[in-house]
Amino acid sequence: MYLGKVIGTVVATRKDENLIGSKLMITQPLTMEQKPIGDPIIAVDTVGAGIGELVIYVKGTAARIAARKMDSPIDSAIVGIVDDITIDN
Amino acid sequence: MYLGKVIGTVVATRKDENLIGSKLMITQPLTMEQKPIGDPIIAVDTVGAGIGELVIYVKGTAARIAARKMDSPIDSAIVGIVDDITIDN
Amino acid sequence: MYLGKVIGTVVATRKDENLIGSKLMITQPLTMEQKPIGDPIIAVDTVGAGIGELVIYVKGTAARIAARKMDSPIDSAIVGIVDDITIDN
Amino acid sequence: MYLGKVIGTVVATRKDENLIGSKLMITQPLTMEQKPIGDPIIAVDTVGAGIGELVIYVKGTAARIAARKMDSPIDSAIVGIVDDITIDN
Amino acid sequence: MYLGKVIGTVVATRKDENLIGSKLMITQPLTMEQKPIGDPIIAVDTVGAGIGELVIYVKGTAARIAARKMDSPIDSAIVGIVDDITIDN
Repeated sequence: MYLGKVIGTVVATRKDENLIGSKLMITQPLTMEQKPIGDPIIAVDTVGAGIGELVIYVKGTAARIAARKMDSPIDSAIVGIVDDITIDN
Repeated sequence: MYLGKVIGTVVATRKDENLIGSKLMITQPLTMEQKPIGDPIIAVDTVGAGIGELVIYVKGTAARIAARKMDSPIDSAIVGIVDDITIDN
Repeated sequence: MYLGKVIGTVVATRKDENLIGSKLMITQPLTMEQKPIGDPIIAVDTVGAGIGELVIYVKGTAARIAARKMDSPIDSAIVGIVDDITIDN
Repeated sequence: MYLGKVIGTVVATRKDENLIGSKLMITQPLTMEQKPIGDPIIAVDTVGAGIGELVIYVKGTAARIAARKMDSPIDSAIVGIVDDITIDN
Repeated sequence: MYLGKVIGTVVATRKDENLIGSKLMITQPLTMEQKPIGDPIIAVDTVGAGIGELVIYVKGTAARIAARKMDSPIDSAIVGIVDDITIDN
């Protein structure tokens, strides 16, 4: 599970019909200090995340589980909105 | 799910028979600013994507779901054609 | 399976309901000499790991198996607390 | 799905018995311009690929599907022999 | 499937009970010229591999298949001991 920030949205009219109704959020992977790591990915929102929110996202089968859409071609999903990060290293 | 651009095609006559009928598109991964990231992959088209189109592609089991071919050895597929990208970071 | 160190926790109140009760631990990947590799990930604790402990974590379906929650959108989990590492190369 | 070139073979006498009969080909990942990318992997041949041939290979469950051996511990397989690559970017 | 060398072991007393009996081997990924690539991982031995041996290992579901433990949180396993590598590039 990864930390990210929702930074935008993607609109695709022509798409797999099992993706209809899924919100496609551009999600920037972050370090725990909230600095960007690498390039954004596109994740399906499953928790009502808005632009600018700090989120937890997952990849692979876990994403379809989160979306409750096992027949949809989803491989990343936002599964939580972060309230607090505590580091003790 | 990832942003990419279709930049070509691959033809393979000798192949797994469950790949017959699948269009193999060379897909260049892109940043949200549409700059290339790393090297192209080969993804099966499932939405009628053409050369030069901006697409969303997926990896793993999601690709077989998109292709409606769970018995085919597919591990990447194009699942949408992008109309619009909005970034607010 | 990977070596890591638990360095913190993440709290998310709004999340997938199947994540309720799962402890989200910030886990720093380590070399076998216990030096950090890349950026921390978020893994579900399944063995009672505490902050500062050296752990083994897994990714993908193995994480849901460890959590005994196949319907939960978990893609990384801590599966053991390391007592000893022996290198002979 | 990835482009590669078969550059060698691996022999392992002591192995998982479900790998018996699978040809283990050393496969060099390539760019679409056929330049090496990173390090070779070991992929099971499922299409009669020979040394020096340009191939398409897959990873994960798709590899077991290609091998028609869902009970075999295979995570990469060659699924096609490339006749032609066309790039239009 | 990847080439590696067994360079050590990890002991974890507190662990997922489905890992009991699995030998956790520290495995260094190698190039085909047997030079180290990146950092070691922890793989379950399924073929009686010893320290210093050159092995083939797999990731993901293939690892649980190799271990004949589909309910165990294993995501990497050693599946063969290498006798010979032939490169013809």
